[in-house]
Amino acid sequence: MTSIEELKRTTTQSGRALVLEEKDRLALRDFVLDEPLGPNDVRIAIHTVGICGSDVHYFTHGAIGSFVVKEPMILGHEASGIVTETGAAVTTLKAGDRVCMEPGIPDPNGRATRLGLYNLDPAVRFWATPPIHGVLRSSVVHPEAFTFKLPDTVSFAQAAMVEPLAVGVHAATKARGEPGHVAVVIGAGPIGLVTVLAALAAGAAHVIVSDVDDTKLEIAKTLGSVTAVNVGREDLGEAVRRETAGWGADVVYECAGSERAIETIFDPLCPGGTVVFVGMPMKKPSYDVVGAMVKEARVEHVFRYAHVFPRCIAMLASGAIDLSPLITRTFSFEESVEAFKLAAQAPKGEVKMQIRMPIEA
Amino acid sequence: MTSIEELKRTTTQSGRALVLEEKDRLALRDFVLDEPLGPNDVRIAIHTVGICGSDVHYFTHGAIGSFVVKEPMILGHEASGIVTETGAAVTTLKAGDRVCMEPGIPDPNGRATRLGLYNLDPAVRFWATPPIHGVLRSSVVHPEAFTFKLPDTVSFAQAAMVEPLAVGVHAATKARGEPGHVAVVIGAGPIGLVTVLAALAAGAAHVIVSDVDDTKLEIAKTLGSVTAVNVGREDLGEAVRRETAGWGADVVYECAGSERAIETIFDPLCPGGTVVFVGMPMKKPSYDVVGAMVKEARVEHVFRYAHVFPRCIAMLASGAIDLSPLITRTFSFEESVEAFKLAAQAPKGEVKMQIRMPIEA
Amino acid sequence: MTSIEELKRTTTQSGRALVLEEKDRLALRDFVLDEPLGPNDVRIAIHTVGICGSDVHYFTHGAIGSFVVKEPMILGHEASGIVTETGAAVTTLKAGDRVCMEPGIPDPNGRATRLGLYNLDPAVRFWATPPIHGVLRSSVVHPEAFTFKLPDTVSFAQAAMVEPLAVGVHAATKARGEPGHVAVVIGAGPIGLVTVLAALAAGAAHVIVSDVDDTKLEIAKTLGSVTAVNVGREDLGEAVRRETAGWGADVVYECAGSERAIETIFDPLCPGGTVVFVGMPMKKPSYDVVGAMVKEARVEHVFRYAHVFPRCIAMLASGAIDLSPLITRTFSFEESVEAFKLAAQAPKGEVKMQIRMPIEA
Amino acid sequence: MTSIEELKRTTTQSGRALVLEEKDRLALRDFVLDEPLGPNDVRIAIHTVGICGSDVHYFTHGAIGSFVVKEPMILGHEASGIVTETGAAVTTLKAGDRVCMEPGIPDPNGRATRLGLYNLDPAVRFWATPPIHGVLRSSVVHPEAFTFKLPDTVSFAQAAMVEPLAVGVHAATKARGEPGHVAVVIGAGPIGLVTVLAALAAGAAHVIVSDVDDTKLEIAKTLGSVTAVNVGREDLGEAVRRETAGWGADVVYECAGSERAIETIFDPLCPGGTVVFVGMPMKKPSYDVVGAMVKEARVEHVFRYAHVFPRCIAMLASGAIDLSPLITRTFSFEESVEAFKLAAQAPKGEVKMQIRMPIEA
Repeated sequence: MTSIEELKRTTTQSGRALVLEEKDRLALRDFVLDEPLGPNDVRIAIHTVGICGSDVHYFTHGAIGSFVVKEPMILGHEASGIVTETGAAVTTLKAGDRVCMEPGIPDPNGRATRLGLYNLDPAVRFWATPPIHGVLRSSVVHPEAFTFKLPDTVSFAQAAMVEPLAVGVHAATKARGEPGHVAVVIGAGPIGLVTVLAALAAGAAHVIVSDVDDTKLEIAKTLGSVTAVNVGREDLGEAVRRETAGWGADVVYECAGSERAIETIFDPLCPGGTVVFVGMPMKKPSYDVVGAMVKEARVEHVFRYAHVFPRCIAMLASGAIDLSPLITRTFSFEESVEAFKLAAQAPKGEVKMQIRMPIEA
Repeated sequence: MTSIEELKRTTTQSGRALVLEEKDRLALRDFVLDEPLGPNDVRIAIHTVGICGSDVHYFTHGAIGSFVVKEPMILGHEASGIVTETGAAVTTLKAGDRVCMEPGIPDPNGRATRLGLYNLDPAVRFWATPPIHGVLRSSVVHPEAFTFKLPDTVSFAQAAMVEPLAVGVHAATKARGEPGHVAVVIGAGPIGLVTVLAALAAGAAHVIVSDVDDTKLEIAKTLGSVTAVNVGREDLGEAVRRETAGWGADVVYECAGSERAIETIFDPLCPGGTVVFVGMPMKKPSYDVVGAMVKEARVEHVFRYAHVFPRCIAMLASGAIDLSPLITRTFSFEESVEAFKLAAQAPKGEVKMQIRMPIEA
Repeated sequence: MTSIEELKRTTTQSGRALVLEEKDRLALRDFVLDEPLGPNDVRIAIHTVGICGSDVHYFTHGAIGSFVVKEPMILGHEASGIVTETGAAVTTLKAGDRVCMEPGIPDPNGRATRLGLYNLDPAVRFWATPPIHGVLRSSVVHPEAFTFKLPDTVSFAQAAMVEPLAVGVHAATKARGEPGHVAVVIGAGPIGLVTVLAALAAGAAHVIVSDVDDTKLEIAKTLGSVTAVNVGREDLGEAVRRETAGWGADVVYECAGSERAIETIFDPLCPGGTVVFVGMPMKKPSYDVVGAMVKEARVEHVFRYAHVFPRCIAMLASGAIDLSPLITRTFSFEESVEAFKLAAQAPKGEVKMQIRMPIEA
Repeated sequence: MTSIEELKRTTTQSGRALVLEEKDRLALRDFVLDEPLGPNDVRIAIHTVGICGSDVHYFTHGAIGSFVVKEPMILGHEASGIVTETGAAVTTLKAGDRVCMEPGIPDPNGRATRLGLYNLDPAVRFWATPPIHGVLRSSVVHPEAFTFKLPDTVSFAQAAMVEPLAVGVHAATKARGEPGHVAVVIGAGPIGLVTVLAALAAGAAHVIVSDVDDTKLEIAKTLGSVTAVNVGREDLGEAVRRETAGWGADVVYECAGSERAIETIFDPLCPGGTVVFVGMPMKKPSYDVVGAMVKEARVEHVFRYAHVFPRCIAMLASGAIDLSPLITRTFSFEESVEAFKLAAQAPKGEVKMQIRMPIEA
């Protein structure tokens, strides 16, 4: 292994980054950012970066909602790395520490932040969300408070998946399912699958996953006590009633952003049960108020996550969650443009593709 | 006052009742029901019965959803009265007690009932919901567990309004607003107004009520620390932000069943706030999932009420809630057909009309 | 296998039972109970019964608190078996079903029962709690609502341990630990060990178990991601801080009933954490109010369990919990007096001893 | 009224302060603090300061627990005033605003602070807690985030009581009593009385207050629907059962810090009820674990307050809470030594004594 000093020097000096120049145009090129190290900051050499659907969406559409790419922007926000330098006031991290990072930094004085709801702070600065640069580059400066030390037993690859896992774990935290409950996860894409893992780790005895894609459902079935329902062929509510002696599921996670699934989302739910909206639908779906009332459903909505990275890392360390079945392909940094082009085609059977940065570790 | 023995005799023998013969046809006539008194039951002479929108709807439409009036049915489910006889196992009530009654009786062996969610029991038998008769008649036999003793300070008229009040109090119970919070109540009809009272009693420092009817809003403004917003003239979200320094309301109660209000229901809400659906919309409204997500809204849905009658009575007794401004007109039993015909016209300025049964008390 | 008809006949006619004649005197003898089958009841042939510390305590002390054995009483309340007959109104069970049973039956009309808190009903009738007989006998009549069907994958032996497991799962339900939290379990006896399993299944990434007995701690360490602390040699608070980077544990379960442990119970806790009292101390311990305040601890207390049997069975069926390491010895019914005598000596290394009734299955 | 400019000049230049030189020795003298105004700070001319038991305790004992007065320290932490100057980044306040202030400032980077539990941050700097100076002086610099604008309808006197009220409101927030519940408040001192007001505003239909001092109980009875119990003459548990038809109170607030009251604190509680520890006992009381278990009590502990000042002010503004009956005496700043000497004698009938600073407003 290189010395930390050498790692710091090489990664700090390199300006190599994966830049979204504009919609449909990516370049791996020099793009130097001058990032001073504040007293509460650490500098991190990036090791692994996952490719997220939002990165791909900026690449293919140039925008997500009101966030529009107007200037060249570095992509990537699911990352792990090695601390190379620490600010004067940093106490919990030191150079050489293996870490992963939470990509959104809120305004500490915002009202939501002070309440502990920092993910709802409208002033949050989030990697690879215009105009904030992402981390498909050699190094980044980040606050200590949003940088988390990894135990030796957690690989950089799994650590770079803590970010999407955090969405599922945050959803499961909000769901507050009792130990031994039954959960439904609608949608077996990457967020659906991490939600399956989170639900099982959070006490679900059994998870029923629905999708229309058998390939995805097959992967879901490998994750634990999981039943797959292809809603192209079978009604979800009926399947859930069959599995639950007619009572319904305690928790239903909507991870597909599917307007059609939302229309009947209270059907598989038990009386007094909970629905958690995780996926963002493109349009406003119709909502079965009366169906929710007769079951007195509680409905929670999640936006990213807050306070969950340490718990995610603890579950990876203990083996309560194993993300490795979801990391289906790894590219070198040099291949990253190609990787994004492939990702844009949503290849069957791929769940999470990652980019391995050119550092030794 | 007549003796209880005489009250029992006259009210038990009388078969006089307000009968919905079929859609649009009401009759005040003899309609004898043979009701044996079980060991856990009490017999009650009815004193006052409120007219509810659902009673009127059965009168004018003959059905509510899948509940269709196929046989003549006695109307009325908001009632107070006097115990005239008690079953052998009854311990908490005695003849002469002034009481009000919860109109729905669940199956004690149902799974929801055993969980304490008895209002969600599909086998519940609810007064004046076909084929179960209501209580616009002289007397009724009812389980002790759903019959509640009144303190001397609570009038029969207010007691007969505990049933609609219970809807508002149940909604406020689910809302779990913190002391001093700000609430919005959408809709200033009878359920909106009891929800205003419930929200204030449950710790709201201030309530913002919206409606399109200034007459109703004027009544709302008399109930306490209330701001009225006529949404025909002003945007609710803007009004709420103005009242809350831009932060939004902690709790939003939807009491209008308005599809249009539901479309933008997360707009007046603060980050981390709660929406409670109380009113039943006729159609499935569209639902702003993304608007709910960016605030991580919690959404609760209520169906009638459970376990709240004793707390309602306690608040009437202590003066925490005063229902008298909402009881706008009282009819004699002999006038009850006329009363329903008037109610069917939804006369401006009337909130709750009640029928006073012909007993002395 | 015998036919159900034959099983019903033989087990219903047999009067053989393990009877506590009085303190210190047990007999395996005929003891006929006449149990009529009500419409909501089932008759069950007993298959396996676990020996609980409370059974042993009645044997060696003749009483627990105010519950005194004044008449001969059949012992045993942790049981599984086979349905041999069903009442007229039973819909969810049929003869031949493999089941386990919840041993306490509340008064359905009690106020706590109606709230869903049936375990707090003062009128509850609980097996092997004087004067109610237990189930170390051939058959028992029990309400359908407290009898739970077993999936094929759950053995009778594990099913007979659902009762103690339910204590741990109820405690974990009350704890509401977030997925990936750290839990401490004080005491590695049978209840401590089922609480370890419940905490892990309920989302704990890691559990720290304390005891003074290394043999028990060794068993605890086999149950998953568990650290053992022998508090005879090491301070619990210090150990927990070392494992949690100084922050403390999210949940602390007191399962030892140890006055000494309770004196410092807030020491290992994190700010905002939760303590759950599961074990009953003999004397009133001293309580560190200020220590609880500076962390704003939430403290929950559990009494047996409510509504958890189905979730326990689901976790056994899915493999989320495996009780087999805790079932350390099995006796035949004929050996049951001997089994109790051994249990009274609290033999090192034994966790749960069970008695296998003489039926084929 | 003087101009704000003049108010700023005179109050910033004055160094007059009430200084605790050492145990038992107070001086009203010049004591100049140099306080620079940071970008997120405001400068405030102090208007009214309440005398708290902790101020008096430092005066008479020189220490509270491990907090020891080693250097001369200005007293006072319950304050209202007028903003005279604002830092460059301040957006919600302007010179001339009437305000009250939260006296504890946490470290924004602390883990508890980030979770929203800033009152539990061990690095919190709290007025008049050694070595941090209090506010019995002309002016103070304070962060915008902990300074709250007053509506015109809230007097400076009531605003200076928001700090102790916040303790009661925080306790009521933790209690989560349902609308119409019954609460018990143990102790009718200042904190007990604000807790009575908070409980009533938070939805209690009725409060039962206990103390041994009839004078204090008489004041409590003026605050709303309150029953007083002199526990020198009557058993609290019995009194509560009599008032609640034998069921018990939903919430019990311990505001006396009484070891003796804590010994039987679960006696007046209902099954499933909640106890909140607000008062700090001097010694560790004995704790009735079994009494808590058979009711599955939830026990909460509060430490000061967090996030409640805005809700307190809203309740004063709306009239939901009226603190004026508790403000029993007001002194001028020049009389402040005398005021403390009087307060040290705990004069009968006095609840809150306040000091009015020499500014016009």
